[in-house]
Amino acid sequence: MERPLVLVAEDQPLILLEVEEVLVGAGFEVETAADGQSAMSAIARHHSQLRGLVTDVRLGQGPNGWDVARHARELTPMVAVVYMTGDSDYEWVAYGVPNSQLIHKPFAHAQLITALTSLLNQAENTEG
Amino acid sequence: MERPLVLVAEDQPLILLEVEEVLVGAGFEVETAADGQSAMSAIARHHSQLRGLVTDVRLGQGPNGWDVARHARELTPMVAVVYMTGDSDYEWVAYGVPNSQLIHKPFAHAQLITALTSLLNQAENTEG
Amino acid sequence: MERPLVLVAEDQPLILLEVEEVLVGAGFEVETAADGQSAMSAIARHHSQLRGLVTDVRLGQGPNGWDVARHARELTPMVAVVYMTGDSDYEWVAYGVPNSQLIHKPFAHAQLITALTSLLNQAENTEG
Amino acid sequence: MERPLVLVAEDQPLILLEVEEVLVGAGFEVETAADGQSAMSAIARHHSQLRGLVTDVRLGQGPNGWDVARHARELTPMVAVVYMTGDSDYEWVAYGVPNSQLIHKPFAHAQLITALTSLLNQAENTEG
Amino acid sequence: MERPLVLVAEDQPLILLEVEEVLVGAGFEVETAADGQSAMSAIARHHSQLRGLVTDVRLGQGPNGWDVARHARELTPMVAVVYMTGDSDYEWVAYGVPNSQLIHKPFAHAQLITALTSLLNQAENTEG
Amino acid sequence: MERPLVLVAEDQPLILLEVEEVLVGAGFEVETAADGQSAMSAIARHHSQLRGLVTDVRLGQGPNGWDVARHARELTPMVAVVYMTGDSDYEWVAYGVPNSQLIHKPFAHAQLITALTSLLNQAENTEG
Repeated sequence: MERPLVLVAEDQPLILLEVEEVLVGAGFEVETAADGQSAMSAIARHHSQLRGLVTDVRLGQGPNGWDVARHARELTPMVAVVYMTGDSDYEWVAYGVPNSQLIHKPFAHAQLITALTSLLNQAENTEG
Repeated sequence: MERPLVLVAEDQPLILLEVEEVLVGAGFEVETAADGQSAMSAIARHHSQLRGLVTDVRLGQGPNGWDVARHARELTPMVAVVYMTGDSDYEWVAYGVPNSQLIHKPFAHAQLITALTSLLNQAENTEG
Repeated sequence: MERPLVLVAEDQPLILLEVEEVLVGAGFEVETAADGQSAMSAIARHHSQLRGLVTDVRLGQGPNGWDVARHARELTPMVAVVYMTGDSDYEWVAYGVPNSQLIHKPFAHAQLITALTSLLNQAENTEG
Repeated sequence: MERPLVLVAEDQPLILLEVEEVLVGAGFEVETAADGQSAMSAIARHHSQLRGLVTDVRLGQGPNGWDVARHARELTPMVAVVYMTGDSDYEWVAYGVPNSQLIHKPFAHAQLITALTSLLNQAENTEG
Repeated sequence: MERPLVLVAEDQPLILLEVEEVLVGAGFEVETAADGQSAMSAIARHHSQLRGLVTDVRLGQGPNGWDVARHARELTPMVAVVYMTGDSDYEWVAYGVPNSQLIHKPFAHAQLITALTSLLNQAENTEG
Repeated sequence: MERPLVLVAEDQPLILLEVEEVLVGAGFEVETAADGQSAMSAIARHHSQLRGLVTDVRLGQGPNGWDVARHARELTPMVAVVYMTGDSDYEWVAYGVPNSQLIHKPFAHAQLITALTSLLNQAENTEG
């Protein structure tokens, strides 16, 4: 079968690689972006196929994870959004998008898969 | 009993009055704001008591409902947020805050009460 | 404000009247149907404005509540559906529609309001 | 219509009266108990008709709200449980029963109604 | 440990095989059916052990996925139901069963696992 | 990445081993306890790092699974709790903790992973 497309935005190369492997193993096709600007470009290129976004909140210079997710939702309103963070989640309640999920580092890879697939399944049953 | 405090931000006076009456009848104490700037000030004054925010998305000149809700969550992370709108909700998925509710005009007043009280009750059971 | 339209289908006149009063008091505009055939006609006439359906499972001769709800969803995919019943709900899991609510008689009128408004609010936040 | 039975346990007479009025106004039949021991007896007498329990966590001498709810669930496994408290809810996560709701004083009476009716409706749709 | 039994109904042999492998890998025992009539027979034979049904909506000649799921729920009221489809989901809101999940092709295999296991876990916590 | 810590309490050695393997494969760090008393001690030692508890309801002599989970929540209010049982779940509704999950033996290992990760993700999004 074809595979649904997910974009991963993360500025730490080892975590980016690990998340990519986990998502490929779960049956997704994965695009990666190493900073916020690359993530913005990838969204512009792939938005019509994009099903999910997994993004670190901190992405170095340029747009952060809150910006990237907002832009993804502007172009793809139903895209599933999972934020990864090492910080407190006080910011998420103010800067996150609706129907998104925040997971804290360190997390088990199964937490990431359940977060992403639950949001995707929820979106499918309510497109009505 | 004392009553939990809710701020209503709405630039149409008749709707503001109607929403205030509905919320008072449901057992809330209500503050009102007729535009975005007044809403911002009311949040600054009352944020330590604020339990809920009911805001129109369009608020005339100045900050809109998306701005007001984001500011409320910055000062009061657990505040319940209900947006009222007459437009499409494509904007909500990009500009709304997490764990908020959008209701379309025209709505039954019981929809507003259920939206606000469900969010309040959900917040209480997860403060852990 | 204008009011959202709900159709009530119930073959017991006293219960029909009581449900109508409860819904009007909650801020809805209400159409009524005293049997399944009238409900089918009302759906055909009003489907473009219809926001909710409250139906008894048993409706005397002709279409029953399961049929009526299925027809409403064919014409209005996002319509909120609440079934009322005096029987076991083993039938609901096989004959009900997705994202519907079953409430047993006797129920408190606030149960009906919460069932209907929760489904309406849930639909609004996921139209994306 | 007949009305579903709810037991209210609360040792402050004014709050007991207020909660009783709110529940009767929402369409429930209400039994009251002014302390934990009376609540235990009322559960023993009424458990076959009991649909909901609204209990203060502190009930003076004798059994507290945690004990009362546990006993209600032993005799009536599907009973809806709402706890009222003026304290922190750190205790609820350890001593509350599953699928229950905690609401903090001061609360709007509509919060209580939504808490109770949501739990009742949820129970009905999953008895399958 | 013993394994819970899931029936997969799918008329495309390669997809049937892939779904079977995914479910076996997740810890399920799997029965397969290549058309609607075989699925009906398998349900009749296994309904007392059946925990889940994963079915394509289109099954060639004979009963379709909507019919198969309705029949499964008649014999096994708590069975978890996941529909797979390549079409729009307008039909699901009218013809699906309550508490079911629709997933669109192409889906990641982890979406299928999360859909099925979430429904199974939800059923377990509400048998009360 | 570091891995989140989960405690497994189970008095049947083969099931304990199987559950441990499943959780390690899903990305968790696992501590094990073969009876209720050991589980109590492990909670006392690890409560500041503990993210999840997976416990059999029956644990031989000493504290049972209901006791162990209550103690874990006293020390770690946000800990995710999954109970495993071979019995009816009538006891869970009276003796389980809020926001916990009960799964029946036999279960697919993916059910356990989804139960645990859903609870963990839910906790993260509501710490606000």
